[in-house]
Amino acid sequence: MYTTETKIRIHYALTDQMGVVYHGHYAQFYEIGRGESIREIGFTYKDIEAMGIIMPVVDIHSRFLMPAKYDDLITVKTTLKELPLHHKIIFHSEIFNEQGDLINIGAVTLYFMEAKDMKRCQIPVALRLKLEKYF
Amino acid sequence: MYTTETKIRIHYALTDQMGVVYHGHYAQFYEIGRGESIREIGFTYKDIEAMGIIMPVVDIHSRFLMPAKYDDLITVKTTLKELPLHHKIIFHSEIFNEQGDLINIGAVTLYFMEAKDMKRCQIPVALRLKLEKYF
Amino acid sequence: MYTTETKIRIHYALTDQMGVVYHGHYAQFYEIGRGESIREIGFTYKDIEAMGIIMPVVDIHSRFLMPAKYDDLITVKTTLKELPLHHKIIFHSEIFNEQGDLINIGAVTLYFMEAKDMKRCQIPVALRLKLEKYF
Amino acid sequence: MYTTETKIRIHYALTDQMGVVYHGHYAQFYEIGRGESIREIGFTYKDIEAMGIIMPVVDIHSRFLMPAKYDDLITVKTTLKELPLHHKIIFHSEIFNEQGDLINIGAVTLYFMEAKDMKRCQIPVALRLKLEKYF
Repeated sequence: MYTTETKIRIHYALTDQMGVVYHGHYAQFYEIGRGESIREIGFTYKDIEAMGIIMPVVDIHSRFLMPAKYDDLITVKTTLKELPLHHKIIFHSEIFNEQGDLINIGAVTLYFMEAKDMKRCQIPVALRLKLEKYF
Repeated sequence: MYTTETKIRIHYALTDQMGVVYHGHYAQFYEIGRGESIREIGFTYKDIEAMGIIMPVVDIHSRFLMPAKYDDLITVKTTLKELPLHHKIIFHSEIFNEQGDLINIGAVTLYFMEAKDMKRCQIPVALRLKLEKYF
Repeated sequence: MYTTETKIRIHYALTDQMGVVYHGHYAQFYEIGRGESIREIGFTYKDIEAMGIIMPVVDIHSRFLMPAKYDDLITVKTTLKELPLHHKIIFHSEIFNEQGDLINIGAVTLYFMEAKDMKRCQIPVALRLKLEKYF
Repeated sequence: MYTTETKIRIHYALTDQMGVVYHGHYAQFYEIGRGESIREIGFTYKDIEAMGIIMPVVDIHSRFLMPAKYDDLITVKTTLKELPLHHKIIFHSEIFNEQGDLINIGAVTLYFMEAKDMKRCQIPVALRLKLEKYF
């Protein structure tokens, strides 16, 4: 299992007139968590794109347990539960508020694809090698 | 069953550097579809809020089949498969491109809640009466 | 002078916890207005990009007179006051609410640039010819 | 003069299909910079709202000198050039990329207003006292 944590401060643009973070913005919190997760093993998603590989999202599932509010400093806990062996990778996100309450649960599935022909491909070897030690 | 269709033109802000609509923006397409769906039976979500009821999203599931691109005129087909009887309502969305391809499938679950105390409540009677004839 | 009008319905994602449209989203309204303005003379911005030309924004000025609110159907009036002769084009936007009040004024300056080398270039001849009759 | 610096990492949602940060998102960078600027003198904008005062944006001017790109770690330098004495406050922003290039210049004017009646009011005394030593 590979887990990382990222903090995000909620700015005004993310709120809606219900006085809470608009539900549609959580996909961005998962994205930021994934990006930092990849960075912490010594890669960046930018490096992956530079290798000619893109990672489109094919599935997202979010559950909203409690609202996040303006100026909250939320923690996004990002977890890979399994070493991705083929063209698919699933990131699990748990988001906590400053009181430690679990406020949101997300699962995002992405494919590895060759940018040049949009064909699915294996996880890049260099990335898999970095991840192997966690599983 | 109650189904409506809404067209949305993709503007530049919705694209990302993969050259397609950023996955996180589909929640907004579902929201626009829901809003127009409620409007077509002679209500608005604004009216519902004016009655002291809010409808927070508690669950979203999205599947991405094909990308939407800049300037595409997509069609969001919004469906209530069941008459909501209690505090929960589920809107199903299917998004089609101009060629008629199904590009995205979404399901969004919302609760009816009293704004004053954030307690779950029944669907407003006036809204249920409008919907009944479709089921 | 060349003027067009575009209507935009305000959805929930555009509001913030002040109960009004977040100021940062007006740039998108100007963009939607510009896009429809170009479409109405028989072009699209997509066509311009297909010609190898991009139009980055180099300057925006916005004044906020009154708020826009959820579910408002705003009208974006987009005006070219001068025929663009060189590498620069300025779109003026005036946004009105349903009561006809002027709520926002914007001016957006863009450059015509060759995508291949990011050098400034002239307005495409085909676009200039379409515009000439308005000036 | 009062100046603070805030770093922001560019995530994917902020890019557009030109491969750069969408121009409309810079208003959010200014907002994040303002928020941190107020926090650093021992206040938060949330505190100001709790005092019954809101600060709507009435004017923004942005100039775009160079693009910001995905994964860039930009620095937003936020400056108050004058002590706000009345109902108006102007924040100046300069945004730099990691190479130290100035990529964007912004000026945002906000009003202090009573939330209860939307009347303009003076800068809160507690905030003015905190700021006075910088001028």
